[in-house]
Amino acid sequence: MLPSNWYVPDPLRQAMHYSLMAGGKRLRPVCVLLACESLNGRDVAAEPVACAVEMIHTYSLVHDDLPALDNDDYRRGKPTNHKVYGEAMAILAGDGLLTHAFHTIVQSSRQFGVPADVALAIVEELAEYAGMRGMVGGQAADMLGEQGITTIEQLEYIHLHKTGDLIVFSLRAGGRIAGANEAQLQALTIYGTKLGLAFQIQDDILDVVGDEAMLGKAKGSDEKSGKVTYPYFIGLEASQQEVERLTREAKQAISDAGFPVPERLFELADYLMKRNH
Amino acid sequence: MLPSNWYVPDPLRQAMHYSLMAGGKRLRPVCVLLACESLNGRDVAAEPVACAVEMIHTYSLVHDDLPALDNDDYRRGKPTNHKVYGEAMAILAGDGLLTHAFHTIVQSSRQFGVPADVALAIVEELAEYAGMRGMVGGQAADMLGEQGITTIEQLEYIHLHKTGDLIVFSLRAGGRIAGANEAQLQALTIYGTKLGLAFQIQDDILDVVGDEAMLGKAKGSDEKSGKVTYPYFIGLEASQQEVERLTREAKQAISDAGFPVPERLFELADYLMKRNH
Repeated sequence: MLPSNWYVPDPLRQAMHYSLMAGGKRLRPVCVLLACESLNGRDVAAEPVACAVEMIHTYSLVHDDLPALDNDDYRRGKPTNHKVYGEAMAILAGDGLLTHAFHTIVQSSRQFGVPADVALAIVEELAEYAGMRGMVGGQAADMLGEQGITTIEQLEYIHLHKTGDLIVFSLRAGGRIAGANEAQLQALTIYGTKLGLAFQIQDDILDVVGDEAMLGKAKGSDEKSGKVTYPYFIGLEASQQEVERLTREAKQAISDAGFPVPERLFELADYLMKRNH
Repeated sequence: MLPSNWYVPDPLRQAMHYSLMAGGKRLRPVCVLLACESLNGRDVAAEPVACAVEMIHTYSLVHDDLPALDNDDYRRGKPTNHKVYGEAMAILAGDGLLTHAFHTIVQSSRQFGVPADVALAIVEELAEYAGMRGMVGGQAADMLGEQGITTIEQLEYIHLHKTGDLIVFSLRAGGRIAGANEAQLQALTIYGTKLGLAFQIQDDILDVVGDEAMLGKAKGSDEKSGKVTYPYFIGLEASQQEVERLTREAKQAISDAGFPVPERLFELADYLMKRNH
């Protein structure tokens, strides 16, 4: 029991809740749960980690939308966090979500019996994949990049880290909870890396050809803000082929490793390739 | 070994490094190490945690100094992070430091043999004490408070959480690494709570009577920005007496619990009471 002076100030709680519950595909939690299932693991033990990774993803969106970064007014068709709660509270809400994600991971051990060394390895990997060498590094590189300066190799770095790392983390964490061995973790890493890159290229494509109502934001925003994208470098058709190739290779990695229940990982890859928002 | 595309983008690394190495009292790392020593623990195992808590403290300063929050141009006599690296990079540098703190804690287990369940408990407590119910909650309450609205009870909430929680965490984590039992952890909690409150009241006092060159910032900034403080509510003399009372009680808690090597914890309390910056 925490003392009575331990509570979350209301505006902070509301700001955190607002963005966490603003919808979205929940792709990363799905990756945690599907990886766990694909190795016959217990879903219930993976749930805290699934929640944690969505908190990390949400905090990254809240901070990324701030005026100093992408300066976005809308996200998923709703006003962004700082438009509703102000910049200061949006910064703190992001900090709160980021910090609470680590608390939530520990609960997989406290409440669902995940061994302490497994939970600790998941904490370590979250800090690695979401941190300065991972997602935050990708965000920084993205912010520094612009048309005419960024190369396609740097764009791949941005996509791999800004988007891919959290997907890879999610799959590995779900695998770890199911007791994955090193070969299985490696297969999930390859699957996640290729899936994440395909996902981000598809995002770039949708920014050009997508339906604004489905996307919940204005299309063409990348070009307008001078962002480099795959279509910018190699055109739409080659980008689409790249998505198909990466999806095929992602599925192959899982096939090759002989997972006991791989079907839903295959379905997820196909679903993401065909998505329109 | 991480793949070669895992690195920290240079401007992000520089921004993180700049604030982490900008000096300061290193009070929180000292608390980790002294608590560990006071129970005859191994310093070397506590060092990663000492580093981690300074990363957390530093990130909180970087975000707190941002224009949307306190809008400070100087910290410890040097330009604040966003004045040097820009707001966007300062936000990301804070996120990077916050995330890497958790990675660093895990290294106490990986490299110095701290048992996984102890390291996991430290992760959990850091997320609690630094999170939405702890330091971030205190920051939010501080931001929302102003003269004429905030009561002295709310001010105590702000001080306890914004400043006290990370000090309490530091002492408990150092104690845990030394194998502290529940009674010893409880004594460290009381010591830290009272020390943290005394520390913050002393900060308030120094903002009124301190030497600007020693403080590294302009004095009177609290009054100017309409912040509530202990001197604002109860005056300077009563505030000073409160610092002395809290310091005495902090030391008493350690005395009562019969720590094997309590001397340096006593010295720290006395030192903080007499500090002039």
